Amino acid sequence: MGLRTPQQYIESLKDGRSVYFRGEKVDDVTTHAVIKKAVHHACLDYEMAEDPKTRELSIVEEDGDVYSRYYKVPSSTEDLLKRSELIEAATAAGKTLVVLVKEIGTDALFGLLRISRQVDQKYESDYHKRVQAFYRHCRDNDLTLSVAQTDVKGDRSQGPQNQEHPDYYTRVVERRDDGIVVRGAKIHTSCTTNTNEIIVLPTRAMSEADRDYAVAFAVPVNSPGVKLVASPYGASAKSDYDAPLSAERKMMETITIFDDVFVPWERVFLCGEHDFAAPLALGFVEYHRFTAVSYKLPLVDALIGSALLMADLNGISRAAHVRDKVIWLISYAETLRALVEMAAIRGKADEHGIYAPDALTTNMAKWHFAHNYHEALQHVQDIAGGMLVTGPGVEDFANADTGDLLRKYLGGRAGIDGEVRTRAMNMVSDLTTGDFGGYHAVLAIHAEGSLEAEKLMISRAYDPRRTLQYAKELAGIA
Amino acid sequence: MGLRTPQQYIESLKDGRSVYFRGEKVDDVTTHAVIKKAVHHACLDYEMAEDPKTRELSIVEEDGDVYSRYYKVPSSTEDLLKRSELIEAATAAGKTLVVLVKEIGTDALFGLLRISRQVDQKYESDYHKRVQAFYRHCRDNDLTLSVAQTDVKGDRSQGPQNQEHPDYYTRVVERRDDGIVVRGAKIHTSCTTNTNEIIVLPTRAMSEADRDYAVAFAVPVNSPGVKLVASPYGASAKSDYDAPLSAERKMMETITIFDDVFVPWERVFLCGEHDFAAPLALGFVEYHRFTAVSYKLPLVDALIGSALLMADLNGISRAAHVRDKVIWLISYAETLRALVEMAAIRGKADEHGIYAPDALTTNMAKWHFAHNYHEALQHVQDIAGGMLVTGPGVEDFANADTGDLLRKYLGGRAGIDGEVRTRAMNMVSDLTTGDFGGYHAVLAIHAEGSLEAEKLMISRAYDPRRTLQYAKELAGIA
Amino acid sequence: MGLRTPQQYIESLKDGRSVYFRGEKVDDVTTHAVIKKAVHHACLDYEMAEDPKTRELSIVEEDGDVYSRYYKVPSSTEDLLKRSELIEAATAAGKTLVVLVKEIGTDALFGLLRISRQVDQKYESDYHKRVQAFYRHCRDNDLTLSVAQTDVKGDRSQGPQNQEHPDYYTRVVERRDDGIVVRGAKIHTSCTTNTNEIIVLPTRAMSEADRDYAVAFAVPVNSPGVKLVASPYGASAKSDYDAPLSAERKMMETITIFDDVFVPWERVFLCGEHDFAAPLALGFVEYHRFTAVSYKLPLVDALIGSALLMADLNGISRAAHVRDKVIWLISYAETLRALVEMAAIRGKADEHGIYAPDALTTNMAKWHFAHNYHEALQHVQDIAGGMLVTGPGVEDFANADTGDLLRKYLGGRAGIDGEVRTRAMNMVSDLTTGDFGGYHAVLAIHAEGSLEAEKLMISRAYDPRRTLQYAKELAGIA
Amino acid sequence: MGLRTPQQYIESLKDGRSVYFRGEKVDDVTTHAVIKKAVHHACLDYEMAEDPKTRELSIVEEDGDVYSRYYKVPSSTEDLLKRSELIEAATAAGKTLVVLVKEIGTDALFGLLRISRQVDQKYESDYHKRVQAFYRHCRDNDLTLSVAQTDVKGDRSQGPQNQEHPDYYTRVVERRDDGIVVRGAKIHTSCTTNTNEIIVLPTRAMSEADRDYAVAFAVPVNSPGVKLVASPYGASAKSDYDAPLSAERKMMETITIFDDVFVPWERVFLCGEHDFAAPLALGFVEYHRFTAVSYKLPLVDALIGSALLMADLNGISRAAHVRDKVIWLISYAETLRALVEMAAIRGKADEHGIYAPDALTTNMAKWHFAHNYHEALQHVQDIAGGMLVTGPGVEDFANADTGDLLRKYLGGRAGIDGEVRTRAMNMVSDLTTGDFGGYHAVLAIHAEGSLEAEKLMISRAYDPRRTLQYAKELAGIA
Repeated sequence: MGLRTPQQYIESLKDGRSVYFRGEKVDDVTTHAVIKKAVHHACLDYEMAEDPKTRELSIVEEDGDVYSRYYKVPSSTEDLLKRSELIEAATAAGKTLVVLVKEIGTDALFGLLRISRQVDQKYESDYHKRVQAFYRHCRDNDLTLSVAQTDVKGDRSQGPQNQEHPDYYTRVVERRDDGIVVRGAKIHTSCTTNTNEIIVLPTRAMSEADRDYAVAFAVPVNSPGVKLVASPYGASAKSDYDAPLSAERKMMETITIFDDVFVPWERVFLCGEHDFAAPLALGFVEYHRFTAVSYKLPLVDALIGSALLMADLNGISRAAHVRDKVIWLISYAETLRALVEMAAIRGKADEHGIYAPDALTTNMAKWHFAHNYHEALQHVQDIAGGMLVTGPGVEDFANADTGDLLRKYLGGRAGIDGEVRTRAMNMVSDLTTGDFGGYHAVLAIHAEGSLEAEKLMISRAYDPRRTLQYAKELAGIA
Repeated sequence: MGLRTPQQYIESLKDGRSVYFRGEKVDDVTTHAVIKKAVHHACLDYEMAEDPKTRELSIVEEDGDVYSRYYKVPSSTEDLLKRSELIEAATAAGKTLVVLVKEIGTDALFGLLRISRQVDQKYESDYHKRVQAFYRHCRDNDLTLSVAQTDVKGDRSQGPQNQEHPDYYTRVVERRDDGIVVRGAKIHTSCTTNTNEIIVLPTRAMSEADRDYAVAFAVPVNSPGVKLVASPYGASAKSDYDAPLSAERKMMETITIFDDVFVPWERVFLCGEHDFAAPLALGFVEYHRFTAVSYKLPLVDALIGSALLMADLNGISRAAHVRDKVIWLISYAETLRALVEMAAIRGKADEHGIYAPDALTTNMAKWHFAHNYHEALQHVQDIAGGMLVTGPGVEDFANADTGDLLRKYLGGRAGIDGEVRTRAMNMVSDLTTGDFGGYHAVLAIHAEGSLEAEKLMISRAYDPRRTLQYAKELAGIA
Repeated sequence: MGLRTPQQYIESLKDGRSVYFRGEKVDDVTTHAVIKKAVHHACLDYEMAEDPKTRELSIVEEDGDVYSRYYKVPSSTEDLLKRSELIEAATAAGKTLVVLVKEIGTDALFGLLRISRQVDQKYESDYHKRVQAFYRHCRDNDLTLSVAQTDVKGDRSQGPQNQEHPDYYTRVVERRDDGIVVRGAKIHTSCTTNTNEIIVLPTRAMSEADRDYAVAFAVPVNSPGVKLVASPYGASAKSDYDAPLSAERKMMETITIFDDVFVPWERVFLCGEHDFAAPLALGFVEYHRFTAVSYKLPLVDALIGSALLMADLNGISRAAHVRDKVIWLISYAETLRALVEMAAIRGKADEHGIYAPDALTTNMAKWHFAHNYHEALQHVQDIAGGMLVTGPGVEDFANADTGDLLRKYLGGRAGIDGEVRTRAMNMVSDLTTGDFGGYHAVLAIHAEGSLEAEKLMISRAYDPRRTLQYAKELAGIA
Repeated sequence: MGLRTPQQYIESLKDGRSVYFRGEKVDDVTTHAVIKKAVHHACLDYEMAEDPKTRELSIVEEDGDVYSRYYKVPSSTEDLLKRSELIEAATAAGKTLVVLVKEIGTDALFGLLRISRQVDQKYESDYHKRVQAFYRHCRDNDLTLSVAQTDVKGDRSQGPQNQEHPDYYTRVVERRDDGIVVRGAKIHTSCTTNTNEIIVLPTRAMSEADRDYAVAFAVPVNSPGVKLVASPYGASAKSDYDAPLSAERKMMETITIFDDVFVPWERVFLCGEHDFAAPLALGFVEYHRFTAVSYKLPLVDALIGSALLMADLNGISRAAHVRDKVIWLISYAETLRALVEMAAIRGKADEHGIYAPDALTTNMAKWHFAHNYHEALQHVQDIAGGMLVTGPGVEDFANADTGDLLRKYLGGRAGIDGEVRTRAMNMVSDLTTGDFGGYHAVLAIHAEGSLEAEKLMISRAYDPRRTLQYAKELAGIA
């Protein structure tokens, strides 16, 4: 048991995994022009555990052992707050890009730890023991994990049945003595190119007829039959100058295909108990949306900071409309922050002492963030100015014909030269437009559940009895 | 020292005060057709202290003494939360109408207790001692208090200077050995017709030239020269059936005129120290907005409850658009609740241990409430239906020609007859339309500071350095 | 044939109609304390036809005959624009309250004229002839008309079937040689207390099984079995000072009960042709929403004017946030106006030359109005100030003790005394709060169809093929 | 006189102009890897004039002569509508990217034609004659034009004075017998790399002290001292598959530096008449915002089409929330379209018969578009799904290991395979995320004036007297 070094993590990725990028099989993800950025970004987790400034936040010492704090099963509000703080700190260090190589996986593990006990209780199965063993394996080896949950779904108005083919949701195609064989594909699986294990969870409620689809398990990324098709979105080369945030930072997304993959029984965590598909999906989501709202904090902070910075450089800090938009951004970001903290404060333990954040508050936080994100972009872009998409290249500052002219003419308020202002502009452009800005925007809406998913959970998590009763009393019809 | 009974409170109002209502001087406010409703409503505070179910929440026992919890100077988050809970409970009992006969006055006292020490420190004055004495007087006699802060202002784009006459802001017109004489008028002073004391505070920052306007003091309501012109808004007689909330509940608002009122020095809490006008105004507001967001909770709960109730009675609970609007209302109300709690949790003590809620969080809560209130009304009215303004009178149910027909035809989903549904509809109509609904709506925007005032405070309470610095680092120009 | 005088109109209402108000049968609606206001308001239509300033707009001269322009069957964009102009002018004269005693009825007649021909064509019936005869009767006798469309509906998630009783939608209970007998109740029927005829239309699509509910007809208001239960909402007495808009203006709303009412065949316009229930409902609505957006124009103008007026009196016209809110209001109102005009410009004739406004544009106009109305209220109330609900009574200005003080202290910018400002404030209060303001707000959402109804029509009226094809071409998958 | 061929246009660009791209001077813009896309895109204008399907719309025949319709000086609503139609058609053919090589220039010419007469009238100058001659030169030679208006501005809270250096606004540095010498820099000048002439206009009102800044003129792009620094934003190479809209379409934006450029008098259109700086700026903007709202129509249509297409492919067309968002998009787009048409219909001629669109309606249209654009993006991205940023590359469909799997697994509703769906997804991704999507979003807010500029014009164009008077009458204080 112990912490890995960044280098150990990198070495662990040279394991023969099947990764495809733009039609080519990738020999070594750690040296691939695009994926290596993601590897480098993921190293942040290991570096923070080594860095004296962040070590205390990044690790847990327990009974003489040391392990990554991400693996700490929360047993108090304090644990939830620390976890949130760590996720926020890592994302801030990652220039608004979440690291996510342990966050999402531990969210899934916490969900599995809670729900597997319930399955065992009803079905006299031994899932909890398996989950415990897998959890210890990951923690003790300081592994990185992906979670594959979102099935490709085909016709989204249908469940697993009534689809054009039966594999639109991942399913068990064979049950053997030593394990099961699964087939299907999951989409939007993050970091898979550079994690060690994939945890697979159902994506929705399943009926009796769907029991083959009620399956959860974990496999090493290099398992035979696991094919990762990496998305080239946002993969074009950029300079630090043009794209100060995203030039060297990347999270890979893959379509993760299970082309008849064998999973030994000790790695199977649900298999046919259809009535637990939904609880398991939600058990994960309960933690994962809390992770989500935690890692959004540096992003919304960056939006406020961008607005403040550009207003200052442009000399318009005191304009009434600018002040108004900045206040909107502050309120947007700080309401999110308050809700995140409150979700932890209102957290509750299950009967075995595992803490989860409050579902209503977490989902309100997520919906608040997601629902208002595009308006936030509007305000930041409004304050920054059109130069977000019309500025010169860094090379133009180096050219003798144009460099001094640009430094002069692109200046802002007194004391701000054109190059400084262009750098600031490029950061805001990277944050709010282009591939990286677009990635943030689409993730705002879709990652960790869509707007509609969050609304559904708000509806479910809210107990209507109190206010309904109050209304009846007020009406005199109680 | 001790708690007053409701009857003692009522008796105390027969003190010769000068109250005008629709051009007539009111002999006895406790028997006046309209004002007696406000007196009755205010009694809630005293009743709750007597009622075993609410006694513990309503009082504080300290060193063998007992006093109303409103007077508890907060020294912890717990105190703030309890105060908030008490205000919420009283307002809920008051059918969404805040009681406010002790809430606002103690907000002012807490502000005075904090700021007077700062004035004394700079000016070697003895205001704090006076405030302390006045505080003890009010607490020990279990008094009701109004706060008169909003000056009539004349041309709102001007301060006290440059107005058509010099009295648009309340000011000291004479300084005597035994006290001062003040002149001016305050507007929107709540409950003044039926409280014992008026605390007067400045409404804005004052410059050196405005020093006569930098004045704070307290006087009994029946002081010579104090004239209260009560607003007839919402005063028309209503039946419980038509207006189940407001028929018997009322908060009086007055224009409070100080027609050369003498104030003895021991009741003067600021007099000329212009640089403390703003701190004192804000010192009060800091508490008062927290009171405000606490007492808004039953109102937003009633909005959710109304939507749930009407959706149920109308048989449309499962309609997608109804679900959507209800979720919006839940998120609106519960985000407010989370921010209120968080404002208390983030509260801080000054160097003398007096706790205040967090200003940023409080103002975000207030702005969130106020900014979205009219949209909330839209959703509730949308779900309830046009019958909010087209329903029959209670007498039509009693009429043999029409009663059974209406009970039949105005029914809702199976099991709901027309009379029950009409009662529910009338409650929602009272809550969201008519004089009472309009009162709530205007207060949402204007009470305890306007939308712009809250935005200003958000801007001031937010420390921009962290996010600005983060943006610079991201841009590589730190 | 000819125009009636206001007095003739008034006399025509003394016809033994069964009107109930607060449980009492009303002897004479023209002298009833509340209803007479509605009668007086309705007289506007007749007065405008007599007034030289508005005569040309109000009447049509055709082949030597003269009749009210409301009855002009539109045959051109010009006709639609003139009709809109007349409705706007009458409503403006009515202090933002639509007159509606001919508007809605002619909307129904136009719809009937169009659809009856389609029914006849399919069913070889002779409805069109009957409608024509009824139309001429109304026009030539210059009658006032109500339209009863909205059934009481019971459980709104159900159609006529599956209700607790079969009468939740109006239906034919007997077919006789000389006519039919109908039973049911309609709600939100406007002006019925003081119109001559009621036109009854189906409120929704009907299936084969619902054929008894597919019925349209017209009856005189005093027909045996027609019982009108008038709503007391907004009926309390007010002074012109407190309520300058609504003190003398009223539109009555009734629950209109058809307690086995006989209708002779010549007054039956649909009876069992269930597949025409929806076309007829929509054929009416097509015109009626255009009427609606026309009569909303004075209301939105009044909101802008209120904001401009109060900003001026309060001395805040130049404040940035005020300017912003006024611009929002201008854009709100003028976008509505542009859409109304465009709905007429894009109007089209059917094969018989009857013009109808464009459905997509009309519904967008209505939705734009309705969807944003509450935000408009927020901005107006924000600019006006809290005195909307805290001002003094007119009697206080007359009282010697307080009159001069109030005139002084409630003043605004230089030159504006307190009485003028209070009058302005009361107008805005009447417009946006209280019974009248609440009536406007609820009507904004519910009258002439709810928000959801308008959205449905936008969806139906929009032909998706063009943009869908464009998207496919852009994607290269056309 | 006559129309140029695309090839003639291309040849005309090889004129020795000083264009810099990423620090390199561009030898030949027509062959430069990036700029040639913009040249190709601009050719659309010339191709449409040759294409029989679009020829009639694209040209004007007058007195035996033929010229591009862009140059038609509007003399009727019909002319404005045709111009709008042409701009819309060209942009639709340009895959939502406006062509703009004649649109903006003729907007400026129309403004100059109108305002120059006013200057002449006051100052007895001969500007109008010069503008006329220049107009004929451009029209008769079928030239392409850029307009440089937005000064770099430095500290945006300051005018030309009080800046760190005097050149933040373009100014006259020398007056000579034969012409003037100008210095300064304009930003966001579109298409300059591939147009023939640059028209320079002032960007704001100028005071007496700013008279050297009150300058307007036109110069050929290759004039000595004109330096164009082209923005590399959005210039990275893309495949048609990844970026079906923007792979081959580009509009170049430059910082246009006037490094002491000589302008002969016949090309000077304003020089020192500071009181006409604002009228000229607005005279241009009046036309240019109408151009803007015209060319936005294909963009908003593409957003509706994208939503419809993705809803269909994903099988969610009937989901209530999807229907709701589509209706929002329809209403957004069609309200824009109605306002554009209405701006033309309400157009008015000046005393010399030159028509201009209605300023209030045009600015409401622009603000409506801009203010809601980001919300439109949110809805489209919401419906499309996360695959906007996580899809595979085209090469993955060609790879034998993954091609069939992806075609299977990325399918949508029955009948839609994964490749078709990915193509559709990539189009929506190109439209709403990435460099092209970001470009559209920033232009929505900033091009042709910011949100605040449009609001200002709404405020100016609205005559407040009517509604203010109405409010006074309603209040009884008229």
